[in-house]
Amino acid sequence: VGNSLVPYQHTAMNGGDGPSSYARNSSYQRGAIDAAEALLRKEIQNRLDLTNHSLSSFTIADFGCSSGPNTLLAVDIIIQALHQKFSSSMPNAQTPEFQVFFNDLSQTDFNALFALLPPQPPYFVAGVPGSFYGNLFPKAYLNLAYSSCALCWLSDLPPEIIDTTSPAYNRGRIHYTGASAEVAQAYSSQYKKDIKSFLLARSRELAEDGLMALIVPGVPDGFLEPQASTGSEFDLLGSCLMDMAREGRIKEEEVDSFNLPIYYTTPKELEEIIRSNKELKLEMMETLEGMNAQGTMPDLESRVLYLRAVLEGLIRTHFGHQILDDLFDRYSLKLAHSSFILHPQTHKSIMIFTLLTRRRYI
Amino acid sequence: VGNSLVPYQHTAMNGGDGPSSYARNSSYQRGAIDAAEALLRKEIQNRLDLTNHSLSSFTIADFGCSSGPNTLLAVDIIIQALHQKFSSSMPNAQTPEFQVFFNDLSQTDFNALFALLPPQPPYFVAGVPGSFYGNLFPKAYLNLAYSSCALCWLSDLPPEIIDTTSPAYNRGRIHYTGASAEVAQAYSSQYKKDIKSFLLARSRELAEDGLMALIVPGVPDGFLEPQASTGSEFDLLGSCLMDMAREGRIKEEEVDSFNLPIYYTTPKELEEIIRSNKELKLEMMETLEGMNAQGTMPDLESRVLYLRAVLEGLIRTHFGHQILDDLFDRYSLKLAHSSFILHPQTHKSIMIFTLLTRRRYI
Repeated sequence: VGNSLVPYQHTAMNGGDGPSSYARNSSYQRGAIDAAEALLRKEIQNRLDLTNHSLSSFTIADFGCSSGPNTLLAVDIIIQALHQKFSSSMPNAQTPEFQVFFNDLSQTDFNALFALLPPQPPYFVAGVPGSFYGNLFPKAYLNLAYSSCALCWLSDLPPEIIDTTSPAYNRGRIHYTGASAEVAQAYSSQYKKDIKSFLLARSRELAEDGLMALIVPGVPDGFLEPQASTGSEFDLLGSCLMDMAREGRIKEEEVDSFNLPIYYTTPKELEEIIRSNKELKLEMMETLEGMNAQGTMPDLESRVLYLRAVLEGLIRTHFGHQILDDLFDRYSLKLAHSSFILHPQTHKSIMIFTLLTRRRYI
Repeated sequence: VGNSLVPYQHTAMNGGDGPSSYARNSSYQRGAIDAAEALLRKEIQNRLDLTNHSLSSFTIADFGCSSGPNTLLAVDIIIQALHQKFSSSMPNAQTPEFQVFFNDLSQTDFNALFALLPPQPPYFVAGVPGSFYGNLFPKAYLNLAYSSCALCWLSDLPPEIIDTTSPAYNRGRIHYTGASAEVAQAYSSQYKKDIKSFLLARSRELAEDGLMALIVPGVPDGFLEPQASTGSEFDLLGSCLMDMAREGRIKEEEVDSFNLPIYYTTPKELEEIIRSNKELKLEMMETLEGMNAQGTMPDLESRVLYLRAVLEGLIRTHFGHQILDDLFDRYSLKLAHSSFILHPQTHKSIMIFTLLTRRRYI
């Protein structure tokens, strides 16, 4: 078992709306939003503190929004929940104007994202290009921050895993599952560093009483031990690359130096990281159930297309575009005979839903 | 004489950075910014009222920013001027964080725009897709609004000019220059309506003491009379289309129904429109000199490429892409023998620089 799916794309995502576009292969992320919807509505109603709210506008940011139908879906749910909250908590006040900032890396297809917008969205729209591991907004600016399926992407690879002299050098693999404890540790350290940066930036940007809802892809507690990670779809893809290296189609060193900048935390680890930030208060954390891939991606082809939509950019940058079809054909064959397809019940991934508030500014 | 150049592209602009991209054919707009730079610096220093400014952030929007090197150029000048203003007016206060909103129609190539940004811009960045004839920001939100070379694009064509039963039906032409008084009048009415909408939206969005600097393409007072407009580069392009119609390559009705949604106001007309808005105060208006095309586009080829970069989207939408090369080859031949090239001194266009402030909210 092990986590099996990549919930978000780090580098240049597959833009447009062609067969291998992210926009047409993001039903897994859709599942995460569906599973989170009820919680999101409930928690906005219960935890958003409007006591000191006297502003005529209310600012929302979606960090790592990506560019697909899910992007607008989550925002629609949030806007509905906010309308309900304002009308129930402040029935005599005018509902503020909502402004929504869609953030993702600058290589994101913002043109495609903006094309998805309805002609008259019920909020003001802005796109914000840049890494969410740094500051993207002025101080005390945001009333609600949101991020779904994005906080598994590292800002960069841990340097040790591509250092041939390091015990964490990740030979013959493209991820930490099934690798040595040193490799997993290097990934974990990088993740902690990144999430701390994320939380630091958001704690600066969140306004007083600001709320933050995060949906973070992860694995259950205990799954980070190397022996627990006995196989993931990344391992399968890595083994296809190694096959190609053995056949001389690519160089083995190219595989050695290729690693996915993706990490799946556990609820326990994430909680520790959050509690280390003193400006943010952890209000609740819950594991979203029903997030196994079988529910959202029933057939082999959709699983392959999904992984390709998400990883193609990374692979193309490292190996060149000419290996793509061959690689995913091999992957498709291996997947068909893998336990992911033959014993789907043994594979599950989780989504961690957590809610944080900004402590009062002193 | 008559105004000869189109300062901005309305529909899908030519994206990317190829030979006919807007990004590589916008030296004319560059000229407008250069001519306005000193005024912009001086007026920000003199007219920006920071008496009541207590915010930690300062919000700037560029309306109709387009997507090319000029986009960032203007913002850089504004940011420098603001730094100078804050350090001279409030030497003991911390300079606020600047946030810059780049606005243009949602078809704009925002991906290309974001790719132009430096790795660490000295301001927070956001892109805002949508027509600036409507509201794009919450109430009292902006501290400084700016628009350069964009307020000549109509929100739509005046309906009369494509109504075959109307006296303003514009047969055999693609613009109002050289056309009947009714056609010019229809364009002028549409322009007034549009600029009033623009000013209404901005007067709502500007914060108290907010400043607005507009660089508006126009013609000198008196040039709106039909007899004064004895020929423009649009007329030349229109005559090429009519030649193609006579040769049967396109239908004459297609030319009749094609019109450019572009209008050049006069300082007098613009002043009247501005004064009709009671929330905004006209602080100054000045004509920028040295804006003749010869200074910025010395050769024939660059003039043709410029017009093509700006108008290609409109023409393609109406006539299809297959006529483009033929049309601009014809245009190039005609232009070489036109007074624009043979007697450049008789052709000049103006830019109107105007500065407005938001009256106090009561």
